Amino acid sequence: MKEPRDISLAVINRLPRYYRFLSDLLRHGRERISSKELSERMGITASQIRQDLNNFGGFGQQGYGYNIPMLRDELADILGLTASYKAIIIGAGNLGSALVNYNIFSRTGIELLAVFDISPDIIGSDLGGFVVRHAESAEAFCREHRVDIAALTVPRSEATSVAEKLDEAGVHGFWNFSNGEIPPLKNGALVHNVHLIDSLMTLCYKLVSEKKDG
Amino acid sequence: MKEPRDISLAVINRLPRYYRFLSDLLRHGRERISSKELSERMGITASQIRQDLNNFGGFGQQGYGYNIPMLRDELADILGLTASYKAIIIGAGNLGSALVNYNIFSRTGIELLAVFDISPDIIGSDLGGFVVRHAESAEAFCREHRVDIAALTVPRSEATSVAEKLDEAGVHGFWNFSNGEIPPLKNGALVHNVHLIDSLMTLCYKLVSEKKDG
Repeated sequence: MKEPRDISLAVINRLPRYYRFLSDLLRHGRERISSKELSERMGITASQIRQDLNNFGGFGQQGYGYNIPMLRDELADILGLTASYKAIIIGAGNLGSALVNYNIFSRTGIELLAVFDISPDIIGSDLGGFVVRHAESAEAFCREHRVDIAALTVPRSEATSVAEKLDEAGVHGFWNFSNGEIPPLKNGALVHNVHLIDSLMTLCYKLVSEKKDG
Repeated sequence: MKEPRDISLAVINRLPRYYRFLSDLLRHGRERISSKELSERMGITASQIRQDLNNFGGFGQQGYGYNIPMLRDELADILGLTASYKAIIIGAGNLGSALVNYNIFSRTGIELLAVFDISPDIIGSDLGGFVVRHAESAEAFCREHRVDIAALTVPRSEATSVAEKLDEAGVHGFWNFSNGEIPPLKNGALVHNVHLIDSLMTLCYKLVSEKKDG
């Protein structure tokens, strides 16, 4: 297997989608699939699929196709979904609640340990089985439980200071939903942004450029 | 100005970020900025910035830098933010509520007209100033109000059938938050997916590959 660092970002960005499709097939009891069928289902060419997956060693066999459970497990490994990461959420508002209620973490093999907020109205209340804790206790919690990932569903004005504290407390990765960007952190924790506004702008761009094309 | 269709996807994906940074600068009363300063703020090279923005004509002037309001307006135009799009949300759960409460649409120059759901518990209740309507009335609403964009914050099992109906009713673009993919639509409406699970997997990938590197 090649080292992941050799793989282009474009390929990496496609891996979660492969993983999702393969998981669906498995759920429907499928054990193998040809690159042709996978190609039709995913709407990308069979040669693209072969090229992408060859980056991680040849999982396809001539005349047999792909072994779905094997390929899916391999992808899970590559994607770090078998790493048993532990996560918390800072911000128990609408977005934080969505992450809890849609089981986003458990569906990615990550253990969600706790949810934090600063609002006295929410602290102590139940959110999908979690008692919302005071955000001031998050730092100590992360140290004690060796938390890997923190989802930040806090206002933009809070995101950086929260990230700085939790970076100090050993968190390695931030999943940042605040509409701002977090500057590089002292201990080098990664920041992965979800900019909903950027996503919506991209849709708008596609709409206007299609109109121009039409 | 070059036609947007000539621009690479990588450049297009960076435009919303430029737009956000320029909007922030404007809010702070700034009128112009050198590519060097913009580069430092955004964490990308000045030459990358020049290259990106040259795709849309040369907005920078030697010795002056970029005129912020002009460049921002031009980007807004390119991104379709001046197109006065009208939107609705289908699904008034946590995610739908987040989109309403964080003013995601108005911050992108889009007019949010209505919010729909199928749950009798929610229909008729207030969500950030919108009375939640019955999802069955969405189709007629879209025809009447010529809705351009529908955000789908519905379960995966519902997403495709909702999209098919609204595509028939003239909606041009779907912002799909359901954890599934929508097959090509009859009238050719665009689908732009927000896969939160994919995003989280990408963060996990970065974490494991960093560990291997370190």
